[in-house]
Amino acid sequence: MFAPIYFDHNATTPVDERVVEAMLPYFSARYGNASSRHEYGRAALAALEKAREQVAAATGAHPTEIIFTSGGSEANNLFLKGAGATFRGAVTSGRAETVAVGATEHLSVLNAARQLRAQGWQLTQLPVDAEGQIHLADVEAAAEEKPRRWSVMLANNETGVIHDVAAIAACVREIAPDGGWFHTDAVQALGRMPIDFRVLNNAGVHALTISSHKICGPKGAAALVMDKRLDLATQIAGGGQERGLRSGTENIAAIVGFGAACELAVSRLAERARAQEALRERLEARLREMGASIFAAGAPRLPNTSFFAFPSVDGETLVGKLDRAGFAIASGSACSSADSSPSHVLLAMGVPADLAQCAVRVSLGEKTRAAEIEGFLLALQETTTKLSRLAAYTRL
Amino acid sequence: MFAPIYFDHNATTPVDERVVEAMLPYFSARYGNASSRHEYGRAALAALEKAREQVAAATGAHPTEIIFTSGGSEANNLFLKGAGATFRGAVTSGRAETVAVGATEHLSVLNAARQLRAQGWQLTQLPVDAEGQIHLADVEAAAEEKPRRWSVMLANNETGVIHDVAAIAACVREIAPDGGWFHTDAVQALGRMPIDFRVLNNAGVHALTISSHKICGPKGAAALVMDKRLDLATQIAGGGQERGLRSGTENIAAIVGFGAACELAVSRLAERARAQEALRERLEARLREMGASIFAAGAPRLPNTSFFAFPSVDGETLVGKLDRAGFAIASGSACSSADSSPSHVLLAMGVPADLAQCAVRVSLGEKTRAAEIEGFLLALQETTTKLSRLAAYTRL
Repeated sequence: MFAPIYFDHNATTPVDERVVEAMLPYFSARYGNASSRHEYGRAALAALEKAREQVAAATGAHPTEIIFTSGGSEANNLFLKGAGATFRGAVTSGRAETVAVGATEHLSVLNAARQLRAQGWQLTQLPVDAEGQIHLADVEAAAEEKPRRWSVMLANNETGVIHDVAAIAACVREIAPDGGWFHTDAVQALGRMPIDFRVLNNAGVHALTISSHKICGPKGAAALVMDKRLDLATQIAGGGQERGLRSGTENIAAIVGFGAACELAVSRLAERARAQEALRERLEARLREMGASIFAAGAPRLPNTSFFAFPSVDGETLVGKLDRAGFAIASGSACSSADSSPSHVLLAMGVPADLAQCAVRVSLGEKTRAAEIEGFLLALQETTTKLSRLAAYTRL
Repeated sequence: MFAPIYFDHNATTPVDERVVEAMLPYFSARYGNASSRHEYGRAALAALEKAREQVAAATGAHPTEIIFTSGGSEANNLFLKGAGATFRGAVTSGRAETVAVGATEHLSVLNAARQLRAQGWQLTQLPVDAEGQIHLADVEAAAEEKPRRWSVMLANNETGVIHDVAAIAACVREIAPDGGWFHTDAVQALGRMPIDFRVLNNAGVHALTISSHKICGPKGAAALVMDKRLDLATQIAGGGQERGLRSGTENIAAIVGFGAACELAVSRLAERARAQEALRERLEARLREMGASIFAAGAPRLPNTSFFAFPSVDGETLVGKLDRAGFAIASGSACSSADSSPSHVLLAMGVPADLAQCAVRVSLGEKTRAAEIEGFLLALQETTTKLSRLAAYTRL
């Protein structure tokens, strides 16, 4: 029997059965290479372009603004390394400049920025306050250095904190009108809050990353949505697919699934968000009664995410005990699970390392039910009581 | 009805139904993120590591030598841009050097090398003779410049020509023992000829690219098989997946499919190769009778590939006519199909541009049957006769 209750939707999601249905014909029947000039190739190309329209529609973009990649990390790296290259086809501009990113970005943004720093770039991290929020005064200060590339996430994967990216981009543009290309990682935002690339673009955002496997689509497909004025150097050179910006045979089945998932993600979005928020409120009310600290509870957040800690109850241990009790939760972002150091997101918020070490994340999905939350709360109560007693005993 | 006869297996292949079966549980049931520390995560990780063993077994490599990527183009770019970087995490070494590649490489190798050239690297192309073969004297000459990176394909995607990569690598090592990292693109070779990474590695090959969708596996999975002494800078930074060399949530379903396809590709390889070669011999005997020139017919070739031309019959036109007659063939590599200039492979072989413009490729698959070849020959005879008459009429 393989069916623990899954509360880790910010790590990845089950593929919706309608999405799997849409994908299936593209494995063994319509299996063509979209570049081929025959019936199989044309069928693949038509599927690719239909998916491009679906992805564009879900983000308020035009289909020609969608560059498909293999995942969100690739799309983030594509922007961070390719934006504003000074000549066509170059991997880097050759000239070291400044890159500005939020302090709580996903590791695919932070580590791409660190690679630039290793090549001589200046790396500016925008600080966050105790609630995980970026202040415009810090954006203004950073803009004075006229960074060439900016990346500020729309919603944080660990805390769920939503940044006012339009306001941040507008602030950057006001101070440095000719300076820099602005990107937002919207991987966690899609399907959980409305996204309108036109509005963001008008405010000064040039590119946006979204990913299939966070919205009940398959792994292996994502997109960089981009303003066509963006000067972008390709990071995977080759046959010239995706308008020359991302070579490689297109992963048609996954892209078809991504398109279908995008349609589902934006249909009934408000209704789903309300339902998840009600479940989270019930969860967090009980968590507070049980003595938990809830991170960024005072900030605007995604409706499905709760990041909290029971002081003196180690997060990794709690995840392990709850796993055995039949509940799948996380101690932070899945990407950094291999690493047991405390969350860089919490440390940036000024959370003490010992409390950060206790953090666990619950992220709800469309199919999460109230009874599952109640079952979880019972298991959590029992587990934390035992672990707290054990911790008290160890301290004696 | 959607079932033209498919003779374009070098562009992509249908996913074997056993492979689809293996993949299906990883969409909506075992959908975990392999980095997650709960039951779903462990199930994903176990599937990932099983696939790694299957891929390693198919290439004579050790599982820890497999770095999964999203495709062959990505794997080729990873080597071309990342090999021999002088410090950990850097995207380039900062110092311009020489890169040596075969003149008939896939565009993902050639264009990655051209990106290096745009950054100041020297680019050396190893010439080929009229049969598409590389001479060791040219390798020796290139080795004198001590290139830092080498890439020579195992088998060509257009002509099927097999290069003696072990001999080429050994030659490089003899002349420049401390110099350079050597890679081979084995995307078209896997499943069509035996590959033994241990033998190649002992001869001086440090890395090898293989791809799932050329061997009846799904699109979206490939691998760079690599000697662990290879100093490789990651091109997609982030959560540190694939031993820190390729970040991004692993595409478990596709990787599971890739593993299953690898098992199938190497089972009954000799038998399949013999059967395909017999079909190709029948095809080429008739093509010669019909007046076709067969490219690289005198070189060792993959058993499934035939690249030929009817002088004065335009290749694109022939592909179009045969498509309407129910046969899917190619006018060259799928990746460059969007571009109608003649094949760089044929031009490198010294084929005149007007004959190269007439080239078409037939690439057979495991399920290709003799009756399909006969049907194709009939349609081809009829089509070329009509097109030749038309050409003669136009010339009048």
